[in-house]
Amino acid sequence: MNPSNLEHLWEEVRELSFGTTSKIDRLETPPSPLHFLRHYLSQNKPFILSATATRHWPATTLWSSTNYLTTTLSSSLISLHLTPTGHADSLTPNPTNPNSLCFASAHVQPTPFPEAIHAIQNSVKGGVVAYAQQQNDCFRGEYGALSGDVDLDINWASEAIGGGPEAVNLWIGNEASESSFHKDHYENLYVVVCGEKHFVLLPPTDVHRMYIREYPAANYSYSQETGKFDLELEIPPRNVPWCSVNPYPSPENKEKEMSEFPLYYNGPKPFEVTVKAGEMLYLPSMWFHHVRQTPDSRGLTIAVNYWYDMQFDIKYAYFNFLQSLKGFQEQRCHKSDSHASVSYNDSDSLIDENVFDDDENHLEMTLTRKAHLF
Amino acid sequence: MNPSNLEHLWEEVRELSFGTTSKIDRLETPPSPLHFLRHYLSQNKPFILSATATRHWPATTLWSSTNYLTTTLSSSLISLHLTPTGHADSLTPNPTNPNSLCFASAHVQPTPFPEAIHAIQNSVKGGVVAYAQQQNDCFRGEYGALSGDVDLDINWASEAIGGGPEAVNLWIGNEASESSFHKDHYENLYVVVCGEKHFVLLPPTDVHRMYIREYPAANYSYSQETGKFDLELEIPPRNVPWCSVNPYPSPENKEKEMSEFPLYYNGPKPFEVTVKAGEMLYLPSMWFHHVRQTPDSRGLTIAVNYWYDMQFDIKYAYFNFLQSLKGFQEQRCHKSDSHASVSYNDSDSLIDENVFDDDENHLEMTLTRKAHLF
Repeated sequence: MNPSNLEHLWEEVRELSFGTTSKIDRLETPPSPLHFLRHYLSQNKPFILSATATRHWPATTLWSSTNYLTTTLSSSLISLHLTPTGHADSLTPNPTNPNSLCFASAHVQPTPFPEAIHAIQNSVKGGVVAYAQQQNDCFRGEYGALSGDVDLDINWASEAIGGGPEAVNLWIGNEASESSFHKDHYENLYVVVCGEKHFVLLPPTDVHRMYIREYPAANYSYSQETGKFDLELEIPPRNVPWCSVNPYPSPENKEKEMSEFPLYYNGPKPFEVTVKAGEMLYLPSMWFHHVRQTPDSRGLTIAVNYWYDMQFDIKYAYFNFLQSLKGFQEQRCHKSDSHASVSYNDSDSLIDENVFDDDENHLEMTLTRKAHLF
Repeated sequence: MNPSNLEHLWEEVRELSFGTTSKIDRLETPPSPLHFLRHYLSQNKPFILSATATRHWPATTLWSSTNYLTTTLSSSLISLHLTPTGHADSLTPNPTNPNSLCFASAHVQPTPFPEAIHAIQNSVKGGVVAYAQQQNDCFRGEYGALSGDVDLDINWASEAIGGGPEAVNLWIGNEASESSFHKDHYENLYVVVCGEKHFVLLPPTDVHRMYIREYPAANYSYSQETGKFDLELEIPPRNVPWCSVNPYPSPENKEKEMSEFPLYYNGPKPFEVTVKAGEMLYLPSMWFHHVRQTPDSRGLTIAVNYWYDMQFDIKYAYFNFLQSLKGFQEQRCHKSDSHASVSYNDSDSLIDENVFDDDENHLEMTLTRKAHLF
C-alpha cells in the first residue's frame, strides 16, 4: 500500500499529542481525575508520573529485601513462566519448518515462591529463563500476601474511569526476559517497584507499521529431568495474529528486517521511555508496546500494573476501520473477485476477520481472551 | 468507492455509542463534570438534558414576552440575516449558471432590535426571510443587555473542559429559516429557550455520506428600495467545501437526490432529535447537523448556544485520515499518475487539500474561520 495518507496520519497524531518535542509528558504529582480524563485518557495519550506518587507504598522499601519477599510468600505457589530464550508470547522458528515462524508460549510451572526467585535470579539466555508473570489478576490471587504493600487501586484513575481495576498483575524478572510488541484492550497503569523497565511505544494509528500477521500457536514444555525444552505446535492448529516487528534485531538480521518491514523502519521514530523504580507509566489502551528490563543490584526487576476497562467508543471503531484498510485496499486495487471472500492464505484478510470477530465479541471478552487479543 | 468497510464503520460507531436502541441519551439532571467527560465528551457522543437544568434561568419566563425583549434591547443594533429562501450558508442555483450550485451567504443588515423582531415574525419564504444570528459570540456582544437572563457558561462543561465558552451565540428565527448540513470545530451546548429546534445528526465517521464538494461562494444583497434580492458570486472567486446533501428534498427532487447521494440514502438512518423549550442538546464536535425550527405561539424560536474549544487529538487525526481516503483510493485504484499532484478539477483532491490546510492551521484558527470551516 502506498503509505502517503498513513504517513500523514502517523505524523499528525504525533504533532497533535506531543507537539514538536515528541516527548512524553512527565508529571511530578498525580493528576486530578478530571485532568487525567481530559488530557490523557480521552486523548489516548501516555504520561510518566514521578516516584513521589508511590513514596507511601511499603513495597518501595520492603520489596528490596528478597528475604522479606520469600518469607511473606514462603507458602505461595506462583505461576513461573519458563523459556530457553526469555521470549514468551513471542515469535520463534517453527519447530516443523525452521524457515517459518510460530507464536511460542512459555512452559508455565506452578512453583513455590522461594524457588521461583532463585530461578529468576539465575536465569540465563540459552539455558533456562524464568519470569514470574501471569496476566490473570495474579497480584490479588497468587501474591495476595503482598497486597498490603501497594495501593489496591490508583485512586485518581478509579474515580476518572468510574470503577476499580479489572486486573492487577505482578511481574518479577531479570534482563533475560523481554515482551515482544503487542497491545492490550485495557487502560494500563504500570508501576515499576524495583529495577527499571524500558518501553518502546507506538500509537494505535501506527498499526500497519507492526505487520500483524497470523502465526501458528506453539507451546514450550520443560522437563525437570533432562533440563531441556521442547517446542510443539498446538493440536488442533490455532493461528495467533501477532506483530512481526522486533525493535532490536541482531546485527546480522538488521538488514533483512529493514527490507521486510519498511513502514516500521522508515516511519517516525517510536517513543522510547524508561520507567524507573517508583515511577508509573500511563500506557493508553491499544498502544503497541515492547518491554525490556534492567534488574536492581540483586538481579530482580519487580513491577505491578493495573488494568482498567477501556471504553469501546468511536476511537475503537476508527482503529478497527484503519486496521481493516490494508486488506480492503488490496481487494479494491489488486483483486478482481469480491471482497466478501476471505482467503485463509491471505494474512490481511485474516487480520480483518480477527478485528471484526474481536469487535463483535468485545462485550463478552473474558480476561484471558482480552490479555491475549491482538 | 466500494463502501463495505465504511458501512462497517458507520454501523460500529452506532452500535458502540448507542447499542441496539440507536436512541440518543436523555438526562433528567445535569451530569457531573467527570460523567460528562467520561461518557460523552471523550466518546464524542451526544445527549439531551431535560428542561429542569434551565428552570432557574430568568430567560425561560422573561423571553416569552416580546415586549420585554424589545424594551431591554430597544437601543441595540443587531446583525439580521436576510435571504429570499430562509437558507443562508446554503447551496443555491448559481446565478451565472442555473444548472450548477453556489454557496450563498445572507445579506447581513445591522438592524434596531425591535425592527428585527418584526421582520422575523413576518418572514415568508419567497419574500424576505429574516434570521437574527451571528456566530461571533454575539450574545455577549450585540445582546449584552440580556446577559443576566441565562447562565454565562454551563458550569459542569466549563469544569470538565477546563475553561469557559469561547463563544456564546443567540438565534432568533421562525419556521422559514433552516440551517443546512455542516459541522463545527467546537463542543456545542445548545439550549432552546422558546419554540423547538429539530436536529438531524450524523457522526463524523459518516463524512463520505455528506458528499462534501467545493462550491463557489456567493452573497445575497438586499435593496430596501426595490425590496428585491440580488445574488452575486464573490470576486475574486473563492470555493467553499460544503455538504451536498439535503435531508428534506422536495418530492420532485427526491429521486434525483437519492441517485446522486446513494451513501446518504442507503446508509444507516440519521439521528433525528427535537429540542424543546428549556432543553439542552450536547452536540459533539465534528458531528454533522441540519437544523429546522418550530416557533412558539407568537412566531419565534429563540436559542442560545455555547461553543467550547474542542481537543484536536487522535480522534481529529482519525477523522482527517478518513476524509482523505476517497481521493486517495481513487488515486490508488484509478489513477496511474503520482498522488502528489492535485487536480483542481477533482473535488476529492480539493477536499483533501482543505482538510490538511485546516489541520495545519487549526491552532491559529480565528473564530470567524472556525465558524465557517468545513
